[in-house]
Amino acid sequence: MTGKMYTDPIEFVEVSPRDGLQNERTIVSTAQKLALVDHAVASGARRIEVTSFVNPRAVPQMADAEEVCAGLPARDDVTWIGLVMNLRGAERAIATGRITQLGAVAVSTDRFAMANQGQTSKGSVEAASAIIARAADAGLTGQVTIAASFGCPFEGEVTEDRVLHMAEACAKAGAVEIGLADTIGVANPVHVTRLVERVKRAIAPLPVRVHFHNTRGTGLANVWAAIGAGASVVDSSIGGLGGCPFAPGAAGNVATEDVVYMLERAGIGTGLDLERLIETNHWLAGVMGKELPAMVGKAGGFPKPRLEEREIA
Amino acid sequence: MTGKMYTDPIEFVEVSPRDGLQNERTIVSTAQKLALVDHAVASGARRIEVTSFVNPRAVPQMADAEEVCAGLPARDDVTWIGLVMNLRGAERAIATGRITQLGAVAVSTDRFAMANQGQTSKGSVEAASAIIARAADAGLTGQVTIAASFGCPFEGEVTEDRVLHMAEACAKAGAVEIGLADTIGVANPVHVTRLVERVKRAIAPLPVRVHFHNTRGTGLANVWAAIGAGASVVDSSIGGLGGCPFAPGAAGNVATEDVVYMLERAGIGTGLDLERLIETNHWLAGVMGKELPAMVGKAGGFPKPRLEEREIA
Repeated sequence: MTGKMYTDPIEFVEVSPRDGLQNERTIVSTAQKLALVDHAVASGARRIEVTSFVNPRAVPQMADAEEVCAGLPARDDVTWIGLVMNLRGAERAIATGRITQLGAVAVSTDRFAMANQGQTSKGSVEAASAIIARAADAGLTGQVTIAASFGCPFEGEVTEDRVLHMAEACAKAGAVEIGLADTIGVANPVHVTRLVERVKRAIAPLPVRVHFHNTRGTGLANVWAAIGAGASVVDSSIGGLGGCPFAPGAAGNVATEDVVYMLERAGIGTGLDLERLIETNHWLAGVMGKELPAMVGKAGGFPKPRLEEREIA
Repeated sequence: MTGKMYTDPIEFVEVSPRDGLQNERTIVSTAQKLALVDHAVASGARRIEVTSFVNPRAVPQMADAEEVCAGLPARDDVTWIGLVMNLRGAERAIATGRITQLGAVAVSTDRFAMANQGQTSKGSVEAASAIIARAADAGLTGQVTIAASFGCPFEGEVTEDRVLHMAEACAKAGAVEIGLADTIGVANPVHVTRLVERVKRAIAPLPVRVHFHNTRGTGLANVWAAIGAGASVVDSSIGGLGGCPFAPGAAGNVATEDVVYMLERAGIGTGLDLERLIETNHWLAGVMGKELPAMVGKAGGFPKPRLEEREIA
């Protein structure tokens, strides 16, 4: 453990408006999504994945992508990310005039790529590269997330070399950042350490972002390992909502408030306000009509000394 | 990361029959507790905290301590641990003729020690030392867990020096192992790394055991940090049941199956059988009449390649 490793602040991408909501059955109104964005900004979020530009029949929750963008607050200190799977989506995102960064997705295996977006893994890298190029043409930045970087629901093990080569190809195509996604929540800290180190070295000086789901309880352990290995950006979702249609069981994104609790207590800056995140958790639980997976939302932060109480005799 | 750190197997203490159940409202029958013990043994558990010898008015779930011990299987390859808070409890545990190790508890702060067991922190170390001595007299081993090692619900921060001095005192008293317990689930990986390293050095060659609650989602991250710092024994509870009356919110022990998933996938031996643990989770959920906190119990292990399926065209 170097001193540096535990002092550099970590950048967050708040993914609750997109990955957090996309598989929820309760359809969240545009106004509520914009309120969620406001809460996130007030909590300190400066990069937010606000929506995806996909077929509304495939993902009904994202049918209001254009309306969400039209309602975003006028803040040029926030990066507004739109997820796009192809050039049609890219055109829609660019046409909003509000999205400032395109997020593309490449998938590590053929079978998952077929199931998720009807193309091969190689085809998904080509599509992501085209999206990145289109983003640059339009004056936006583009980044790529490599889905199923740590394991595939169809093929099982995914080789590190495969992910590494995809990361290199996307970096070469002009991506400003590469994200490694544990889409189905199977990663372990040794795998995370090794893959983050290798990808970071291969794409330097581009930053490595990580995206973990807490499907098997290992989400925060993997975040911790990733940061130790040099990842500098973490995707997280307020309340820990989120899931993948191909991942069985409860399968949320790592919860923003849980990650912030861990990092801030460990002396790592996050730029986020834990109390406001907890308030947002409670508000969002009301919107969704259920308790959210995040733990800190239920337990609260580190206990303050109860000085006002009568001492126990 | 050294090679060694990720290859030595980790020893588990299965705490579900005691810490797992003690705060559950559903009273579990003696027969069901013994079935849980059988399931744990069949899953590979070789150290099991089977009950506590405390006042049944304070902890009704543990009122059948003697009956549980009388029903334990005749296996001399399993260490049967009884938790005791004082000499009266030690005498009860010894009188069963089945308990082979006494677990004592020392508490890091005066206010928590008063609330939990009506004594000062110093008094709790003296009581633990007396228990260890009595265990040795009776031909048993004794170990000590230091409660609230990473934070106190009443006093907030707990200094590392305080915990270190308590660990040294308990080691001097003849404990065969020192456990560091995050009773209220507030620890972070940097704190864990530092405290485990310091205590390990101070009590060498005695092993350091760690006991984490997942109250804030950080349980597995803390297990991972503790192992990296040299802890060699982990307390865990099948299903992730467990909680502390002074810790608000959902607050189970780290789940055995989640920790085993993480470690086995990371190449660290556990001696435990994940599939049998998952079966036990499902059985225990039926006994408790609710879904358990463990995540791997819901999601299953690492996906096997679905070779039998028709390839997606």
